[in-house]
Amino acid sequence: MDERLQKQLAFALEIDKEKNILRQTHLSGHGRRENDAEHAWHMAIMAYLLKEYANEEVDIAKVMLMCLIHDIVEIDAGDTYAYDAEGLKTQKAREDAAKERIFSLLPNEQKEELIALFDEFEAFESAESKFAHTMDNLQPLLLNDSNGGADWKAHGVCAKQVYGRQEKTKLGSEKLYEITDRLIQKNIEKGNIQK
Amino acid sequence: MDERLQKQLAFALEIDKEKNILRQTHLSGHGRRENDAEHAWHMAIMAYLLKEYANEEVDIAKVMLMCLIHDIVEIDAGDTYAYDAEGLKTQKAREDAAKERIFSLLPNEQKEELIALFDEFEAFESAESKFAHTMDNLQPLLLNDSNGGADWKAHGVCAKQVYGRQEKTKLGSEKLYEITDRLIQKNIEKGNIQK
Repeated sequence: MDERLQKQLAFALEIDKEKNILRQTHLSGHGRRENDAEHAWHMAIMAYLLKEYANEEVDIAKVMLMCLIHDIVEIDAGDTYAYDAEGLKTQKAREDAAKERIFSLLPNEQKEELIALFDEFEAFESAESKFAHTMDNLQPLLLNDSNGGADWKAHGVCAKQVYGRQEKTKLGSEKLYEITDRLIQKNIEKGNIQK
Repeated sequence: MDERLQKQLAFALEIDKEKNILRQTHLSGHGRRENDAEHAWHMAIMAYLLKEYANEEVDIAKVMLMCLIHDIVEIDAGDTYAYDAEGLKTQKAREDAAKERIFSLLPNEQKEELIALFDEFEAFESAESKFAHTMDNLQPLLLNDSNGGADWKAHGVCAKQVYGRQEKTKLGSEKLYEITDRLIQKNIEKGNIQK
């Protein structure tokens, strides 16, 4: 087999491990914990279907690919829960090392392309990055709300924390932030999110 | 919330169930069984990275979206194993009913768009459909090969069955069929696939 294809298939096999990285979010119907690959799949489809609500025009293929690959670094770095203050301090260093190792499995120009896309997501500056982040926030919110806010309750999360994270949602989509705000308010009223 | 957005979010929540539809394929490292959402995520990334090997030029965004949604009908219809002759007889009727129910959750024009994309995948005529099918075949082959052919062994699958399925691979990519053929031959030699 030629070296290029061999590298591409080695990467394809490596990213299979993302299916074992568990998040704090539970599946709808009070299911098991969700993994990163499922989360990314869900985000990419949601991005496509909700693209009309992006604040700025987006290259939707780019948003989708960004959604699909944005958690690959967690194969090495693990998932850092949005409200884990300690974990958040070391997150960047852990993810940088992972990024270098995992994307280096690819032929060089594909490595550079995917790292650039990952960095663009992280930088939170482009229209595509902002909308992808909106999906990254909305997707677990939707699941958690459908489960009676069980994940917020389990972690004793308060309104300030949720709003702190969801501020990003607004930058990608004012419209989707409206519904986000309504869902948060509902969960505060029900006592699922602490005041 | 306006009706359109309500419908879109209802669909987004409904497809979460795809994460519970188990396939026969096992994750790499002799892991648990893979589910449809994980499989779709994996296929979409592989399609992007391997697009240079498509026999015909493809609209890669379309291929990726096709990969992401092609198994949604299995939420109702269940997964039909590629070598389950009885299940294959009723597969189309089961999937047609599922398609109508699930995509009807969406606003009408999005329902029609996704059904058209699903039908295009199934029809196996367009360049995008053929390449998406190549991914649908290559992704589990890669995992199964990495596990010493455990899934073929568990089901007593023979070479004729594997080649019967993998014929489709060639139509999307001659180059990826070459490596497919090599992996099948290796697994026949090792006794993982019956002659």
